[in-house]
Amino acid sequence: MDPELLARFERGDRRALARLITHVEDGTPQGRAALRSLYRATGKARSIGITGPPGAGKSTLVDQLAAAFRKDGLKLAIICVDPSSPFTGGAILADRVRMKHLQEDPDVFIRSMASRGALGGLSRTTGAVLKVLDAFGFDVILIETVGVGQGEVEVVREAETCLVIEVPGLGDGIQAIKAGILEIGHAFVVNKADNPGADRVSEQILTMLSLNPNPPEWQPPVVQTVATRGTGIDELARQVRAHWAHLDAKSLRHRHLGQRRVADLSDILKARALGSASQRVLARPDFTELRRQVELGQIDPYEAADRLLPFDGPDEWRLP
Amino acid sequence: MDPELLARFERGDRRALARLITHVEDGTPQGRAALRSLYRATGKARSIGITGPPGAGKSTLVDQLAAAFRKDGLKLAIICVDPSSPFTGGAILADRVRMKHLQEDPDVFIRSMASRGALGGLSRTTGAVLKVLDAFGFDVILIETVGVGQGEVEVVREAETCLVIEVPGLGDGIQAIKAGILEIGHAFVVNKADNPGADRVSEQILTMLSLNPNPPEWQPPVVQTVATRGTGIDELARQVRAHWAHLDAKSLRHRHLGQRRVADLSDILKARALGSASQRVLARPDFTELRRQVELGQIDPYEAADRLLPFDGPDEWRLP
Repeated sequence: MDPELLARFERGDRRALARLITHVEDGTPQGRAALRSLYRATGKARSIGITGPPGAGKSTLVDQLAAAFRKDGLKLAIICVDPSSPFTGGAILADRVRMKHLQEDPDVFIRSMASRGALGGLSRTTGAVLKVLDAFGFDVILIETVGVGQGEVEVVREAETCLVIEVPGLGDGIQAIKAGILEIGHAFVVNKADNPGADRVSEQILTMLSLNPNPPEWQPPVVQTVATRGTGIDELARQVRAHWAHLDAKSLRHRHLGQRRVADLSDILKARALGSASQRVLARPDFTELRRQVELGQIDPYEAADRLLPFDGPDEWRLP
Repeated sequence: MDPELLARFERGDRRALARLITHVEDGTPQGRAALRSLYRATGKARSIGITGPPGAGKSTLVDQLAAAFRKDGLKLAIICVDPSSPFTGGAILADRVRMKHLQEDPDVFIRSMASRGALGGLSRTTGAVLKVLDAFGFDVILIETVGVGQGEVEVVREAETCLVIEVPGLGDGIQAIKAGILEIGHAFVVNKADNPGADRVSEQILTMLSLNPNPPEWQPPVVQTVATRGTGIDELARQVRAHWAHLDAKSLRHRHLGQRRVADLSDILKARALGSASQRVLARPDFTELRRQVELGQIDPYEAADRLLPFDGPDEWRLP
């Protein structure tokens, strides 16, 4: 760990912040060491995840919401996450020049993230970047995703408040609200509500929510907005603050943070278990030969595993 | 392992097959033992994954393709996989009554699978179910997914031949072909090709394929079909057979099988590493207390991990 980089980070240097995030995204030893030393400074920021189909106007909505929170004097970070790309490595990022007036605000930090590795990897990385931004001292972190697929859902789940954006006229409403989207929303936004069908979409969402066999204590509101004109944004910001108040009043936030720390412990132990076991297997003189025999089908992988890592118990992670 | 169940499976009893699949899906000790003892009988079946947006007519297309392969005398299994559900546990499966004429065919086996656990989990389960069907003696296994999200892509990747279905008139073609879909297709099908815009969609796909910076040796064809009328199905079946011939001629299939066996070895070792490490951690008398302290924020998870599972190396799976 470069102590100078961390010291600059702690003094509030935004270039140090940007470099640390890159280290964390790339999973470098520096990034890992930084996460470790920053951990105790995390747990203060509010995080808001925003997902919805392409063309729903998410970027404008995030812009407007950011502006609303800036009026409250809150320091903001915005992460734009794109879990998908037509070809590996060639992610098309959300148009980064978009938030021009926010980019000039010294208390707003904007960062784009593309999928570099596997699924799950990105949500894990997003969680780590959230911790860095949290430790840096941002009050609110907005996580905007590009689409609405399973990858996006995983990413948005990292946030404590999740907004699901819908729009009228995207065809079958039920189709648009699938892939576990309904479960994650703490508020639903029907954007472009000046288009025909906004009330129908709102009602569809309310109907589907009412079908939840396990209705949550927090009843997700449905807010109609026209982000390009700023209509409904104050109401949306109010609903987000209401969700924060709900989390605080019920000690849910406290409990969530505790659960998150335990989940972090489990993740750290898991990663170490994998690291140390693969180190042991790689160090075995017969590994290469056994691997070759498996490849050629001369022995089956279970036999090879019996020799390389004998273990009889349940073969899965079982930590609570 | 119930030896009677396995014996019935080996005699070709379809009810035993169905029960074994349930064991494998549920990850029971029986299921794991069965996978182990069946492993050597796998590697013969051809697998075809089919993905595409809802409403693209996948089910009808799978029906027709199955019928085409049945004419070749091939024994077929069809798996319908739905990685998404509006509420946890409440997966809406593909209409199972659909393939009535196939359901009456003793050499066709149809099974629906819903997401029960996490992402990645389903593709792993699909891979395991593929092995069971392969060992049972099916010549061709068709894997049909419900949608086109990241979950579906992961599932379809388990197959050696992947078909991506598109349809004219679903709006922005580029939007429809994202999420890594382009990379996985060995053939693209423009179904409902009697609708306006079919040629435009075909051209868009060909254009996007031509932009691939690393063009594969196998050039994925684009086939236009009208599945409801059977149009284009023979051509599609011909292209699938051509892909099989390509895999065989270039020894790609042989190489893929070798790589798959090595990947299986890695997965088995990984699962054992996690199982044995969590067993060790859970057996420690201080685990519950350390976990409690982490939950309350009294110590950070890294400190707790240092006590529970000290390890200094790179914390990730590193097997080639």
